[in-house]
Amino acid sequence: MKLSSLGEFGLIDSIRKMTAQQSPSVLIGIGDDAAALKLSSSSLLLATTDMLLEGVHFNLSYTDFYSLGWKSAAVNLSDIAAMGGVPRFCLISLGIPSSVSVEQVKDFYRGFRAVLRAHRTVLVGGDTCSSRKGFVINIVVLGESEKAKLVTRAGAKAGDRIFVTGTLGDSAAGLDLLRAATGRKRQEAWRRKLIQKHLRPVPRVAWGRIIAIAKCAHAMIDISDGLSSDLAHICDESGVGARIIAEDIPFSRSLLAASDKLGKSPLYYALSGGEDYELLFAAPPAKAKKLRSFDITVTEIGVITGERRLLLSCEGKTKPFRPTGYNHFKKSGG
Amino acid sequence: MKLSSLGEFGLIDSIRKMTAQQSPSVLIGIGDDAAALKLSSSSLLLATTDMLLEGVHFNLSYTDFYSLGWKSAAVNLSDIAAMGGVPRFCLISLGIPSSVSVEQVKDFYRGFRAVLRAHRTVLVGGDTCSSRKGFVINIVVLGESEKAKLVTRAGAKAGDRIFVTGTLGDSAAGLDLLRAATGRKRQEAWRRKLIQKHLRPVPRVAWGRIIAIAKCAHAMIDISDGLSSDLAHICDESGVGARIIAEDIPFSRSLLAASDKLGKSPLYYALSGGEDYELLFAAPPAKAKKLRSFDITVTEIGVITGERRLLLSCEGKTKPFRPTGYNHFKKSGG
Repeated sequence: MKLSSLGEFGLIDSIRKMTAQQSPSVLIGIGDDAAALKLSSSSLLLATTDMLLEGVHFNLSYTDFYSLGWKSAAVNLSDIAAMGGVPRFCLISLGIPSSVSVEQVKDFYRGFRAVLRAHRTVLVGGDTCSSRKGFVINIVVLGESEKAKLVTRAGAKAGDRIFVTGTLGDSAAGLDLLRAATGRKRQEAWRRKLIQKHLRPVPRVAWGRIIAIAKCAHAMIDISDGLSSDLAHICDESGVGARIIAEDIPFSRSLLAASDKLGKSPLYYALSGGEDYELLFAAPPAKAKKLRSFDITVTEIGVITGERRLLLSCEGKTKPFRPTGYNHFKKSGG
Repeated sequence: MKLSSLGEFGLIDSIRKMTAQQSPSVLIGIGDDAAALKLSSSSLLLATTDMLLEGVHFNLSYTDFYSLGWKSAAVNLSDIAAMGGVPRFCLISLGIPSSVSVEQVKDFYRGFRAVLRAHRTVLVGGDTCSSRKGFVINIVVLGESEKAKLVTRAGAKAGDRIFVTGTLGDSAAGLDLLRAATGRKRQEAWRRKLIQKHLRPVPRVAWGRIIAIAKCAHAMIDISDGLSSDLAHICDESGVGARIIAEDIPFSRSLLAASDKLGKSPLYYALSGGEDYELLFAAPPAKAKKLRSFDITVTEIGVITGERRLLLSCEGKTKPFRPTGYNHFKKSGG
């Protein structure tokens, strides 16, 4: 069905029905001038927003609409996870070109809803408009946290151990595979897994919360720009430096299988790739043992230093390195 | 200066400096994964978001960047005003094409900041990215209200008087003037005023709050789509109808001067034009006198009826009418 036969208010009504969820915290949801919401008393309000633009953040020939909706929700929930917070509410703005069908918009919302529900986050409002220039997405996630549990990017101290959750580099390798794919029918398992990591990342909401509650992190960030860039953000905000051990960075077996074919090293993907949405955090050494007692996948990959520069130890040699993740407006990646 | 020479993080840093405001309610502002904010205890959180797309919501040959920033903030504050709330925090996402200079982005933020400051709203975060397909804006405003003071679109009752603030139709006439203008040098005052109303609307934040605190409104909305559409929203959500007296709709002298030249009636602009960002509300008859005691400009323009249809009385004749404001995706305006 074409959007033009449904109209703006028909579409909003249809979204309202699709995403309807009862929650005693939502006094006014979709359909009024603003949502009216109840937070736990004494909590801080967390707020984050991300814009995703066709041709910049995603390419409709690589992604299906379900995955696009999924990822839009996931990247925002990941920001709340990186603060150690609990996501509660979500608002979404969509600019939809006339080439997109009602079914595709509904698929987008199905993927979006799947992630929200998994993380008990309620869609409470948004804006839906026609776009003349590509598919445009903006997401807002509102969450909460107790002041004492909040983990920012500032706070890392010399001597802290650097940890990451999960494995790094998969998403960027998945994107390279999508770019290189030309109607390939047979898909090896590693190929599917890396592409899945790129299209449907899983935000580490529960893990971020566990780390925050156990006070295991002096500083935390989610890896959206690549390990090198996001580590640099922590170091900049904390006024410290860092040394990473290349051999300790966790890689998936899929990435190890892919990197030969793709002609780039796993280390390259991890440092510069981005979009892994894993958590990167600095933990006081005394907490390292405690971390291993939780049911979360974390790996120690280096140490925070007092000297404000980034060092990489690789095959026994230590060299300075610079952030190389994606930087909007800059012509190259640096 | 070109954005490519400043880069994403340079731009964010520059915005951070430009918009820096101290507020004890902002524990974490721009520059972390999420903002961390303090609301008054016992308040409800209000949240609203609006997307503005080049070629759909604005045209860079009609508007300067200062006005664009101004309007982006104003239309979102207006949604909080329509709930009777107090705006507190703001997040902004910008997708910026390479054709836009650093100076233009800064001008945008100057206009944006002017409106935020006037309404004591603090910029606490956002997202800045490059766009390949036009200038893209998304704004979020977070506010608060006591539960008992909240005014929604639902709640209008048969017999309520219908009021609007300010004058209607100016903004749409201003847009028609901008469209018709061809390098005109001499600008009559009425022309300038209508264009100003279109480019730099003033959100009725204080008025909305006065109306809410005095419990003068059973239902309220801001006029963004046009009187006919927005009145229909109130009627739909409240399960009522309405009768409007055309002769009672307040028009500015500028609009009366313009409508001859533009070949459209003030009534047309008021009903179908939209973007006035005045408040439309249903007040119990007993409150009509009280309303006149406040220092706010309100005009009674009709009455809420029990029968679910919209009527317009004009020159002694009463006829049904349909919402005719802007509807995204529909090919015509209906």
